[in-house]
Amino acid sequence: MFPYSNDVDYQCWLNYQRLETPSLSDQYKEYLKNIVINIDGYIIDSIKNELYYSIKKFFNIEAIITNKPIKRTFTIISKLDGGSFFSNTIKEEEYTSLSEEGFLIKKVENSTKKFILITAKSDEGLLYGTYKLIQNIQMEKPLDQLNLLEKPYIPLRIINHWDNLDGSIERGYAGKSIFYRNNELVDNLDRIRDYARLLSSIGLNGIVLNNVNVKSEETKLIAERINIVEKLYDVFKRYGIKIYLSVNFASPMIIGGLKTADPLDKEVRKWWKERVDFIYNRIPDFGGFLVKADSEGQPGPFTYNRTHVDGANMLAEALAPHGGLLIWRAFVYNCYQDWRDNETDRAKAAYDTFMPLDGKFLDNVIIQIKNGPMDFQVREPVNPLFGGLQKTNQILEFQITQEYTGQQKHLCYLVPQWKEVLDFDTFLFGEGTSVAKIVSGSIFNSPNFGIAGISNIGDEINWTGHTLAQANLYGFGRLAWDPSLSGKKIIEEWIKCTFGNNETVLNNLSEMMLKSWNIYEKYTAPLGVGWMVNPGHHYGPNVDGYEYSRWGTYHKADHYGIGVDRTLKSGTGYTAQYRQQNFEKYEHLDSCPDELLLFFHHVSYIYKLSNNKTVLQHIYDTHFEGVEDVQWLIDKWQGLERYIDSKRYSSVYQRLLEQRESAKEWRDVINSYFYRKTMIYDEKRRKIY
Amino acid sequence: MFPYSNDVDYQCWLNYQRLETPSLSDQYKEYLKNIVINIDGYIIDSIKNELYYSIKKFFNIEAIITNKPIKRTFTIISKLDGGSFFSNTIKEEEYTSLSEEGFLIKKVENSTKKFILITAKSDEGLLYGTYKLIQNIQMEKPLDQLNLLEKPYIPLRIINHWDNLDGSIERGYAGKSIFYRNNELVDNLDRIRDYARLLSSIGLNGIVLNNVNVKSEETKLIAERINIVEKLYDVFKRYGIKIYLSVNFASPMIIGGLKTADPLDKEVRKWWKERVDFIYNRIPDFGGFLVKADSEGQPGPFTYNRTHVDGANMLAEALAPHGGLLIWRAFVYNCYQDWRDNETDRAKAAYDTFMPLDGKFLDNVIIQIKNGPMDFQVREPVNPLFGGLQKTNQILEFQITQEYTGQQKHLCYLVPQWKEVLDFDTFLFGEGTSVAKIVSGSIFNSPNFGIAGISNIGDEINWTGHTLAQANLYGFGRLAWDPSLSGKKIIEEWIKCTFGNNETVLNNLSEMMLKSWNIYEKYTAPLGVGWMVNPGHHYGPNVDGYEYSRWGTYHKADHYGIGVDRTLKSGTGYTAQYRQQNFEKYEHLDSCPDELLLFFHHVSYIYKLSNNKTVLQHIYDTHFEGVEDVQWLIDKWQGLERYIDSKRYSSVYQRLLEQRESAKEWRDVINSYFYRKTMIYDEKRRKIY
Repeated sequence: MFPYSNDVDYQCWLNYQRLETPSLSDQYKEYLKNIVINIDGYIIDSIKNELYYSIKKFFNIEAIITNKPIKRTFTIISKLDGGSFFSNTIKEEEYTSLSEEGFLIKKVENSTKKFILITAKSDEGLLYGTYKLIQNIQMEKPLDQLNLLEKPYIPLRIINHWDNLDGSIERGYAGKSIFYRNNELVDNLDRIRDYARLLSSIGLNGIVLNNVNVKSEETKLIAERINIVEKLYDVFKRYGIKIYLSVNFASPMIIGGLKTADPLDKEVRKWWKERVDFIYNRIPDFGGFLVKADSEGQPGPFTYNRTHVDGANMLAEALAPHGGLLIWRAFVYNCYQDWRDNETDRAKAAYDTFMPLDGKFLDNVIIQIKNGPMDFQVREPVNPLFGGLQKTNQILEFQITQEYTGQQKHLCYLVPQWKEVLDFDTFLFGEGTSVAKIVSGSIFNSPNFGIAGISNIGDEINWTGHTLAQANLYGFGRLAWDPSLSGKKIIEEWIKCTFGNNETVLNNLSEMMLKSWNIYEKYTAPLGVGWMVNPGHHYGPNVDGYEYSRWGTYHKADHYGIGVDRTLKSGTGYTAQYRQQNFEKYEHLDSCPDELLLFFHHVSYIYKLSNNKTVLQHIYDTHFEGVEDVQWLIDKWQGLERYIDSKRYSSVYQRLLEQRESAKEWRDVINSYFYRKTMIYDEKRRKIY
Repeated sequence: MFPYSNDVDYQCWLNYQRLETPSLSDQYKEYLKNIVINIDGYIIDSIKNELYYSIKKFFNIEAIITNKPIKRTFTIISKLDGGSFFSNTIKEEEYTSLSEEGFLIKKVENSTKKFILITAKSDEGLLYGTYKLIQNIQMEKPLDQLNLLEKPYIPLRIINHWDNLDGSIERGYAGKSIFYRNNELVDNLDRIRDYARLLSSIGLNGIVLNNVNVKSEETKLIAERINIVEKLYDVFKRYGIKIYLSVNFASPMIIGGLKTADPLDKEVRKWWKERVDFIYNRIPDFGGFLVKADSEGQPGPFTYNRTHVDGANMLAEALAPHGGLLIWRAFVYNCYQDWRDNETDRAKAAYDTFMPLDGKFLDNVIIQIKNGPMDFQVREPVNPLFGGLQKTNQILEFQITQEYTGQQKHLCYLVPQWKEVLDFDTFLFGEGTSVAKIVSGSIFNSPNFGIAGISNIGDEINWTGHTLAQANLYGFGRLAWDPSLSGKKIIEEWIKCTFGNNETVLNNLSEMMLKSWNIYEKYTAPLGVGWMVNPGHHYGPNVDGYEYSRWGTYHKADHYGIGVDRTLKSGTGYTAQYRQQNFEKYEHLDSCPDELLLFFHHVSYIYKLSNNKTVLQHIYDTHFEGVEDVQWLIDKWQGLERYIDSKRYSSVYQRLLEQRESAKEWRDVINSYFYRKTMIYDEKRRKIY
């Protein structure tokens, strides 16, 4: 069955509807009636299926797919070396600038033929080109000037799943796993195929199939449970998506029966080598391993007095002969900190741990680094490992699933947040060394760089619970492909492909989406301080929730002031982990951006921000505004009721109401907390409890 | 197997050891070599077993049990009407003052015979007398003047279990249920029999077998799963313990297939009647039902716009023909309160709900009322329903399991707390109407009064996790039997029976136990304000943990002051629920006891307590003292190392270390919270963070 469900919300941005402009529809239809594909392969089959299905939906016709043109007008999908009759239409510069995964789409017309050409060096390139052509139709772009040459800016574009075999998803807010149930693979793989379609349509080329916290059943995925992985491999390979597994560092003991997992132990190294050989024997294109080691209770090399280098390189050596990658998470910190201890600073942990190891990892080792130094808060500075590491492959990790950003009950379009990270200038090799540039690998001349995102999907019919959270998955893929895209451009594409080309929808919804992160930030933890959430599940306000805890996450609010002094001069010295220009910016109160003020400095409540408001008045104001802004979101959405199908409309509407209630709770708890602590009145005398 | 385990910690206070005084041992042995029992019955069998077993342990002899004396010296256990040869030794006043459950023990000597007589009107009385004689031996009491006449002061003495059929225990801190596992009864009932021995040895005569939150499997206990109840009945009846079940008010719908559970619906009433008949057909001595209705999500009559009277009386009518009781919990409050709402006061809920219903319940309905108006905090005033209700049967509910009092990791001997409740003068019918007198039923001339305690046991080998928590179960039973017993008397009995008669152990341990509640109070929530715990599991400090929540549990601390104004004059008016004398005491700052100050009043941190300390300095001082006191507990316990077996010694020692760590956490979090909020220094300049 293609697709698995016909529910409109299920289609996400692959929502192929009849075109609204008949003349344009007729033009496209003429070209798409005859599809010429002169090669074979499983990815090619996926291309055929997608074209056949979408053409049926767009034009209500059955496309004819042949290996040679049967009409004068057609669409041809062909490798660069595949067809003599079009090779002379490709310019030299087009040819040279096409990368392995890139594609070229152009419209060609000569005396005997009129055709749309999609060409590429690889099957994957053809697939991406096909989806691009389909998207052009969805967005009703004119056909005349069709001429597109694209290639991904970042080599590794990987989605990470925190799915467990029992069907649960760590930090999942849209139901259970679409892969697993009761320690088995689900029965029906059609839905997984549709997920692969969604991923490849936005250019993602890798997936980690299981949670980084690897429990006992998941540990067996590299042994007796490999059949589960094989079956998923068989789905994802058809969409050019490499599969990766999270592995348990203690596997040699847990499933290997060895007495140690010491990475320098001969038997352990042999065991991993055999294990990797076993995997590649079943899964020739296996991507590699992701490892969370010595972090939050996960096993790792520290147990044996070995380093991360010892641990990672040992696994990388086993993978190297097969071309496999070893991805090692930098999320390592002391999660048993004493809150009384003012010296230790969790923000410093990743840099302190990994900088001394720079240059010691093998070529196929990649360090996966969260965007910020803490853990996916609504606002954090960029992780200083970006700009620190000079001789280590790096993956940037984003969290698409909205753990700290409203759990898919609140609207929070994260692309603007991610853009700030990608655009951040690290000054690694002088001005202009953005994070995006680093993770593109271009300055390191290595393909083992990339971007990863923790998936926000589950088995709810619309994948993400909140329909509008689909935009985060879409945006993640698009940014991974091209970090220079603006948040606005991305959201407009997404809206058109998801809801159609109505102008009011486009205008209202893009405004809603683009403001939503800022709105969420307003009514939650202020000025970069973070962590004012309920412990454990992380939903809803709790100012002291993590204040007297072991997690290294404090705001240090007292009667006079608030914030964490992370300066070199008088604080933890975290600021010194940045290169000079950024160090100077963050170290000094007058240059530190307001939105990160409390992350870097402990200041009085009456300290004046750049807008001349005091910190406390800013807290009061933003928290009242935040709720008003949510009401604005509701009003905007209500304006779209007539343009959007009632199911999606009312589902989003219900969530907006929940967001409003929750925002009020945030407003009142945060304001009351600070009012009770400071006894300083709100200048506007609004109601605080 | 009798007992199920020989582990010394498992025996609790039925720890029968060889006597330390040989001469006394010889005296007792002479009498106990020959036991004369001239009646039969299953309770009588239990008496025989206990005597045979204990005599073996005390004297290493096999007692000879006959129905007539075979020697000149013996012990005889006989109903009052059972033997002519001793009837002339019983005085008229002894005869008349023996109640149904009471017993008489005396030593008789004449020219032809020397015997210890245990006599009673009922088998239960004989059982209680037997345990009393055994305890006298354990405590090495002299034999010469043996002459005891006892009867329980309170009619219903019931242990409540919050056990679920899956084996979990709500608020259990000593392992899983000893009754259930995987929705079935456990295989081996020997351990349950030993539990019955423990309960009847302290005079308890009822047990509620399942959690008041009745889920789907437990709902079936009154239907297809009755066989589980039957088997437990067969164990407990042998020890004079009636069994009760918690039932789901919605049972007619859940298992009866009816469309309603409306208590005034004819079909519903018929269904319950048939259900009760069905139960009594299987379990002739069934005690009755316990119901948590319209509370914390449990179903109840409110759904149908009916009252608690409608609900309770309907069930009571079904039970009445069989002599069954209907126990209805008064723990009813709005658990969706808005923390911003200063009018609503959870403390007022039980009184407000049940006072208007006084006199409207049937004779076999009993309202079960928690000791305080909130929920088992370390310090609360007495629930004003005691002293309010004049025409309603009442059960006083204590929590033996240490939910808010250290979860059996901290030492907290609760008898002193319970004593304060039982001794509290309600002034119901003038001065001298203590809570104990009320729940004895004597002033109401009804047997349907009593006391209930939530069990603290689980399947850990020593029943209660913390060995010293066994004393709480023991003390609960002893107080239920005789509320006039002092905490000191009870703990001394318990120590002797549990650890033997060593003087050092007796002195050190009784001092530790008697101070422990006060120590726990010192380092936790101050001055009666309560609730400064982590939400959900309720272990460890979290000052604002319940401050911005829906549970009606607030401390209202701001920069200037703290406490809940519950006065009539300016607060919620809760004080007016007490009779005049208590109202006056609590209403006015100068007469309100310090330990309840913040429960009744919102005061400034610089308000002076009766000891002339400010509230804040009191908080600082008690929190520093509390940790020092825990160290004192540790020192005291270390002094006992040579007198106590190493297993129990080190198990308690480990828990005391955990208590010390946790007490430090409490001290530092509470003190830091208030210091940061007030910025008032500790006078002694101790370390606050």
